[in-house]
Amino acid sequence: MIKVSVFYPASESAKFDMDYYCKSHMPMVKEKLGAAVKSMSVDQGVGGGAPGASPTCVAMGHLYFDSVAAFQTAFAAHAEAIMKDVPNYTNVQPVIQISDVKM
Amino acid sequence: MIKVSVFYPASESAKFDMDYYCKSHMPMVKEKLGAAVKSMSVDQGVGGGAPGASPTCVAMGHLYFDSVAAFQTAFAAHAEAIMKDVPNYTNVQPVIQISDVKM
Repeated sequence: MIKVSVFYPASESAKFDMDYYCKSHMPMVKEKLGAAVKSMSVDQGVGGGAPGASPTCVAMGHLYFDSVAAFQTAFAAHAEAIMKDVPNYTNVQPVIQISDVKM
Repeated sequence: MIKVSVFYPASESAKFDMDYYCKSHMPMVKEKLGAAVKSMSVDQGVGGGAPGASPTCVAMGHLYFDSVAAFQTAFAAHAEAIMKDVPNYTNVQPVIQISDVKM
């Protein structure tokens, strides 16, 4: 199983509409990528490790696929529509990471 | 539900023993923090969003708790033992983020 994580790095000027992300963007991504998406999750950054510290990311979205190829094939066909929706909920440039789920 | 993510940022000199992390470190953390830990997962970075790009993190570990207070109480009692084990599997300084799980 592989996990595609989309990080939205925190900064003083970062804006993020979590409501739009959960209710509109992620459902749209799921609908476009179809059965290739095995599951998805969304995290809202609330802090760092030490009490009072800032989070590294204001938000993170994660999508699970059977393989890197399954992600790339599904995403390539809809990348433009998906990326075009980003300014509707954030001014942050997302950073994508692909991970192998070890446990 | 809150998620404590431990990021291990990638770099040219980063070393990470995934076998030790999954078979020794994470089970030790789970045993020390006890029932406060609701579940855990581990990701190994394999790439960035574009084909051939590097991952942001060589590895990430995630632990789920009922609340920030539940994490802080459980962690405070064992922080020293847990942090002392880090050099046994990596030379990377971990970065901790607490997130609110939205979906």
